[in-house]
Amino acid sequence: MSDLNLDWNREKRQRLPEIVYGEGKSVEQLRRILDAFADKGKPVFVTRLQEEKVAELEVELGSYDSVGRTLWVPDGKGMPAREGSVALVFAGTSDLPVVNEAERVLAYLGISSKAYGDVGVAGIHRIHEVIEAISGHDVVMVFAGFEGALASVVAGLIGKPIIGVPTSVGYGVTAKGEVALKSMLGSCANGLLTVNIDNGTGAALAAARILGI
Amino acid sequence: MSDLNLDWNREKRQRLPEIVYGEGKSVEQLRRILDAFADKGKPVFVTRLQEEKVAELEVELGSYDSVGRTLWVPDGKGMPAREGSVALVFAGTSDLPVVNEAERVLAYLGISSKAYGDVGVAGIHRIHEVIEAISGHDVVMVFAGFEGALASVVAGLIGKPIIGVPTSVGYGVTAKGEVALKSMLGSCANGLLTVNIDNGTGAALAAARILGI
Amino acid sequence: MSDLNLDWNREKRQRLPEIVYGEGKSVEQLRRILDAFADKGKPVFVTRLQEEKVAELEVELGSYDSVGRTLWVPDGKGMPAREGSVALVFAGTSDLPVVNEAERVLAYLGISSKAYGDVGVAGIHRIHEVIEAISGHDVVMVFAGFEGALASVVAGLIGKPIIGVPTSVGYGVTAKGEVALKSMLGSCANGLLTVNIDNGTGAALAAARILGI
Amino acid sequence: MSDLNLDWNREKRQRLPEIVYGEGKSVEQLRRILDAFADKGKPVFVTRLQEEKVAELEVELGSYDSVGRTLWVPDGKGMPAREGSVALVFAGTSDLPVVNEAERVLAYLGISSKAYGDVGVAGIHRIHEVIEAISGHDVVMVFAGFEGALASVVAGLIGKPIIGVPTSVGYGVTAKGEVALKSMLGSCANGLLTVNIDNGTGAALAAARILGI
Amino acid sequence: MSDLNLDWNREKRQRLPEIVYGEGKSVEQLRRILDAFADKGKPVFVTRLQEEKVAELEVELGSYDSVGRTLWVPDGKGMPAREGSVALVFAGTSDLPVVNEAERVLAYLGISSKAYGDVGVAGIHRIHEVIEAISGHDVVMVFAGFEGALASVVAGLIGKPIIGVPTSVGYGVTAKGEVALKSMLGSCANGLLTVNIDNGTGAALAAARILGI
Amino acid sequence: MSDLNLDWNREKRQRLPEIVYGEGKSVEQLRRILDAFADKGKPVFVTRLQEEKVAELEVELGSYDSVGRTLWVPDGKGMPAREGSVALVFAGTSDLPVVNEAERVLAYLGISSKAYGDVGVAGIHRIHEVIEAISGHDVVMVFAGFEGALASVVAGLIGKPIIGVPTSVGYGVTAKGEVALKSMLGSCANGLLTVNIDNGTGAALAAARILGI
Amino acid sequence: MSDLNLDWNREKRQRLPEIVYGEGKSVEQLRRILDAFADKGKPVFVTRLQEEKVAELEVELGSYDSVGRTLWVPDGKGMPAREGSVALVFAGTSDLPVVNEAERVLAYLGISSKAYGDVGVAGIHRIHEVIEAISGHDVVMVFAGFEGALASVVAGLIGKPIIGVPTSVGYGVTAKGEVALKSMLGSCANGLLTVNIDNGTGAALAAARILGI
Amino acid sequence: MSDLNLDWNREKRQRLPEIVYGEGKSVEQLRRILDAFADKGKPVFVTRLQEEKVAELEVELGSYDSVGRTLWVPDGKGMPAREGSVALVFAGTSDLPVVNEAERVLAYLGISSKAYGDVGVAGIHRIHEVIEAISGHDVVMVFAGFEGALASVVAGLIGKPIIGVPTSVGYGVTAKGEVALKSMLGSCANGLLTVNIDNGTGAALAAARILGI
Repeated sequence: MSDLNLDWNREKRQRLPEIVYGEGKSVEQLRRILDAFADKGKPVFVTRLQEEKVAELEVELGSYDSVGRTLWVPDGKGMPAREGSVALVFAGTSDLPVVNEAERVLAYLGISSKAYGDVGVAGIHRIHEVIEAISGHDVVMVFAGFEGALASVVAGLIGKPIIGVPTSVGYGVTAKGEVALKSMLGSCANGLLTVNIDNGTGAALAAARILGI
Repeated sequence: MSDLNLDWNREKRQRLPEIVYGEGKSVEQLRRILDAFADKGKPVFVTRLQEEKVAELEVELGSYDSVGRTLWVPDGKGMPAREGSVALVFAGTSDLPVVNEAERVLAYLGISSKAYGDVGVAGIHRIHEVIEAISGHDVVMVFAGFEGALASVVAGLIGKPIIGVPTSVGYGVTAKGEVALKSMLGSCANGLLTVNIDNGTGAALAAARILGI
Repeated sequence: MSDLNLDWNREKRQRLPEIVYGEGKSVEQLRRILDAFADKGKPVFVTRLQEEKVAELEVELGSYDSVGRTLWVPDGKGMPAREGSVALVFAGTSDLPVVNEAERVLAYLGISSKAYGDVGVAGIHRIHEVIEAISGHDVVMVFAGFEGALASVVAGLIGKPIIGVPTSVGYGVTAKGEVALKSMLGSCANGLLTVNIDNGTGAALAAARILGI
Repeated sequence: MSDLNLDWNREKRQRLPEIVYGEGKSVEQLRRILDAFADKGKPVFVTRLQEEKVAELEVELGSYDSVGRTLWVPDGKGMPAREGSVALVFAGTSDLPVVNEAERVLAYLGISSKAYGDVGVAGIHRIHEVIEAISGHDVVMVFAGFEGALASVVAGLIGKPIIGVPTSVGYGVTAKGEVALKSMLGSCANGLLTVNIDNGTGAALAAARILGI
Repeated sequence: MSDLNLDWNREKRQRLPEIVYGEGKSVEQLRRILDAFADKGKPVFVTRLQEEKVAELEVELGSYDSVGRTLWVPDGKGMPAREGSVALVFAGTSDLPVVNEAERVLAYLGISSKAYGDVGVAGIHRIHEVIEAISGHDVVMVFAGFEGALASVVAGLIGKPIIGVPTSVGYGVTAKGEVALKSMLGSCANGLLTVNIDNGTGAALAAARILGI
Repeated sequence: MSDLNLDWNREKRQRLPEIVYGEGKSVEQLRRILDAFADKGKPVFVTRLQEEKVAELEVELGSYDSVGRTLWVPDGKGMPAREGSVALVFAGTSDLPVVNEAERVLAYLGISSKAYGDVGVAGIHRIHEVIEAISGHDVVMVFAGFEGALASVVAGLIGKPIIGVPTSVGYGVTAKGEVALKSMLGSCANGLLTVNIDNGTGAALAAARILGI
Repeated sequence: MSDLNLDWNREKRQRLPEIVYGEGKSVEQLRRILDAFADKGKPVFVTRLQEEKVAELEVELGSYDSVGRTLWVPDGKGMPAREGSVALVFAGTSDLPVVNEAERVLAYLGISSKAYGDVGVAGIHRIHEVIEAISGHDVVMVFAGFEGALASVVAGLIGKPIIGVPTSVGYGVTAKGEVALKSMLGSCANGLLTVNIDNGTGAALAAARILGI
Repeated sequence: MSDLNLDWNREKRQRLPEIVYGEGKSVEQLRRILDAFADKGKPVFVTRLQEEKVAELEVELGSYDSVGRTLWVPDGKGMPAREGSVALVFAGTSDLPVVNEAERVLAYLGISSKAYGDVGVAGIHRIHEVIEAISGHDVVMVFAGFEGALASVVAGLIGKPIIGVPTSVGYGVTAKGEVALKSMLGSCANGLLTVNIDNGTGAALAAARILGI
């Protein structure tokens, strides 16, 4: 059964390179995808890739980030740097896997970013300390699990494009991130945009679309 | 069928007077309850009472509050004032029905309160302007619909007992208050307590329990 | 009880003017809000305002749009036009209330827009006919109820910033818009951003943030 | 306790042979079922059979497919070929387990099929490349996880009977396939039929019913 | 704003004529749609059309069915009769609106049908009395609300293509039809196909696709 | 279309007479059902019958109970009294519609019952006052909305068969009775049985089955 | 911390012996419970007890049933046999764990039972073959996962007390048993009673209550 | 990436010391946090810390409680004892992990507590035996899983501040604690306050806020 039908012209159509979704793909399927990209002399980026599979894939040291679970095999030429930068604001250490995923996809797309961490609303003075620095970026991502209130607060403070990224951090009623997501969607703060739970990649691609204007 | 079996000794057992739940009761049933209280020389307080029924009940002018939908027929003696006061912090005008319900139950219980309104997180500077005044009260209630982030922010700023009261204000994913409720339950801010959606009465009775220590 | 505490400096903080949420506010409260804005010589914009209330408010003819349920009382000076334009792509006639809300908020913010209607995925050739025109805009909004597939298809075809606006159009499993919302959030198409169900205002404000770069 | 009461006359009643549901059955129970079929000289087909159990069952090499998790022990005579063929259209590699299950049940029922893979809506031109080939089949199955938009698009393009098969591929709001299912049920495209999430077997049996006319 | 962009070539593409979804459309929009069809000399069929709107539309007597809420304005030529017939099996009188909708769409498509009513599983002998007649049709639709068990029973008895149509009949846990839908999707009986809750039109169009082979 | 196919032999098969579900049936359909029963000289019982329809049906005074919304047209002979009696324990006045429905179905079936009202767990001493009387009955029904705790408490106190009947009384998280239902299903108290929300009729028929042993 | 406060007088109060819930209890806690019962010379019965714990508890061979996961340590005297018997009707082999749990609790309570297996509605003739035997019992339990239709069918055929026991057998929309449960609660068949998903113990205790009349 | 930004002045702001959420933090991150606290000469308390991580952290014997999964590294000085005491009322042994978490956080905050166990509503006499002792405390916590009825019963008996702590103990419909939570939120008993499922820490901090008045 033919199961490999890559979308080689996405880059032209959308100005966004192909990113491979790793979950549910076998090592053998991934191997064939990596080879296909190598044959074309293109870089490849894989998300949601479990560490066990990476060992079997025998990729170069440093190409895999075990926190964000992303693999990036460059093509030697590198991506041309894009203008603009992104602030990655996150509530707590447990959000780091999603923050890392976004950060690395941004780098792959040639976009610089800076992280502002541990600024949860339980100690709101910490947000005030960094809000000016945050508002100096062109796009702001806010990562938060639990009740996701951080996105509302940041969106109320600055006027830049804001992408809320709900994370699946929490327990009891906030388990799996649906409350954080709905808090961001239903925020009183105007103009807050949202992506799927734990979708660092989607947030990064959306930022690229915005910066591409 | 006997359908009236009032709990006359709740006051002794819990130091809290009877409060009648008006929804789903017919005018005729309500009439009999009012009469039973009048016969005992006791005040009566009814919550969630629709305005149409009040007209038929023919109660004294001023005893019914149409915003909070509560009826309070005093006994002439009045409730002895309790020590302590409650801050009623609310996000927006649409939360007023629940705020009013809580305020009036508190008054019925002899507890003073003060409202701090329109301090939603979309403009967080407004919270900072009143936070010191709020922290001067013994118990703080935070009323919020939509994503309910206000409760997290307030709980992160002060150390007083805080009761989050989610309201059924919102639309789309935040319709009916469940997101506000879950945001409060799953708040990163420590020690935030919660009651049912739109439950101003429960919040007031809980405050009475706390002030009664 | 003081219930009016408007956020006069939002415009400076976020470069976005105040927009009043009309649902759940009484005519009397709305009257006071309109007067407060008039006193300051500022324009006012109210969303989710039911037609019955408008009659009682006695506003000027033409200031209320009964499809999108928005009221716009200008200040005489007008909003300075912003650069950039927005494509409003919608699946069917039943989405028009939300499309109209977004269109009018954009106009209030000085942003031009153009609607591309009746291009649901059931007849995908209709999308292909207009996709080039759509991609000429700086920001693209896609309005869709039912299963919301239109947003995925459009996001797969162009590389501009795309805001999916799920609408509460549908019945059975798609009633109330939650399937359209989740389809947009979980789209295979990369970098699609989303707002709350029926949130035309939020989409317009997000577009303003993006165009403000 | 008697736990084996097989439905030997289903084939006559419905013209469909028995298919055994393997999940939750012990190896010992499965052994007895296989023996009962062998005694009758009938082929047996087991679905959702975990690989660990197969090792213990000691069946012939090649009778078990580890991707689709199906076991097929033929009776030597083979199933008479039926007329008609089925197109298996799927969005991505991660859908393969369900595609394989359907493909093998079809083969067991004597129905030929052909797979058309990696044609997700994020690159809609890939669908257009194969749509004519797809429409040459008598029944079309569309397998998709995430937001399931592929089924809507295919149903809008051709007039053949279409069975949407939602798969449990996705994460966050689309985890477990319920969004893909509801997207297919609520599709704007007319006359799209649906089965349970991951139910490749049900789709194949439904195709057999349709082709049996 | 242009809101009318009809899909005139659907009939050629899918061999299915256009059917207009009436819910959420204004009388004025419907009027323009009817006129556009009349201008082309085509028949028009509208579903989910409320009786109030029909009065204002001033259509010919007999073209509107108030139980199924469908409007059918013929073109004078009539639809060519298709071969094949459909059995409409329903559990109780309360399912009639959905049964009627399907029956009339079938008639519009030139397909004959016959209804078998009041055969709920609570008195299973009634199903046995008609099962032979039912199995004489080419496609079988089973309409059921509450727990939807009728579809499972019928699918276990005959081998024809079966389309389960869950209806929003029931109360408590079965209110709105989701239990009937999930019962049909999760049926033990093999090869049962399903459409959205109350979707008589979708079931009829799916039957047309099946009969068109 | 034939829509009347009554199950005349249910009484013989199950020893339970036919009970007609009134919701969603038109006055004309109900009229035909009443006539069919009258022709056979049988009594008829209709549940969930709205008051407006009763006026049009022109039935005898006293045959309709507007609280429980049931219609009972006797056959003149009356139902033979059955042995055994049922306790109807309910939490508050708002549960009365469901209590009344059960009481009247029991009477129709020839079973005596006695109601014990206003014994909610908020004042548990009231339960203790009547528990001995309750345990004197052969079957105990417990009606409760909100959190439904009353059923657990009663089931912990006595050993008779207990049927929990959740009612749709409550608001916020307990609206529509699902919490009461799940509380009863998940009760720590052993051997508590449950029916659908507001299903007084089902509880009465289950009691008849139990008393029929 | 004192964590052992057994309810020694439940037997007198409810005529039902203590049954210990094993899930979430440590081996050490279970050891102490077994010893406390042994000291009193009472039998002990533990449900939902994982096999790993049993090994550590060092109980007598044969006292643990690994399918139903129940432990029964008799007191040497045995339970006096009760009159009446129970039919255990189940849909498929995968329901056996719950059937076994119920069967063993019934035996512990001195009640005889007989199982009727593999009679799912997909082959309804199998039910007809055993329905007369089933109706000879005093109480009928129906165990079913997936869509749970078996309970509706059996309840429509006989007039004995029927307890539906939904099982967590199924996948996709029917995973975890909630559809089976809601199908039973919302059944068209009158007087069907229900317990929690997989609650074989509760069903057995309810049967004991019924037989105790 | 900087991921450590501790909130050192929370104690001053809220009079509550920092408590670290252990879930999702790596051993290396936890090590750095412990060191940071040690450097400041402050005690540290970590919740939801898995036993595997503790081994790697090499902390002192006795500082980790494996039931409640909390780590407490004291600073040598100890917390000054606060006035007031807390009753920890719990339904069954399976609730102990959450009870232990609360008890240990209270001890860390200098608050004494006493546990009252195994008093589930299935044997309500056990509650009556201890209710007087319970009401002698200043704050009462009620821990319950399953249907959570215990909290309603206790709140109906005494007038002290009551914090319901739903636990994720149960199965079927009560799995994961949401029914217990909603039962407490929707309780008929007035003035019951609630925290998130399994949130022993939040309950303890709320008690500290109350006792701090």
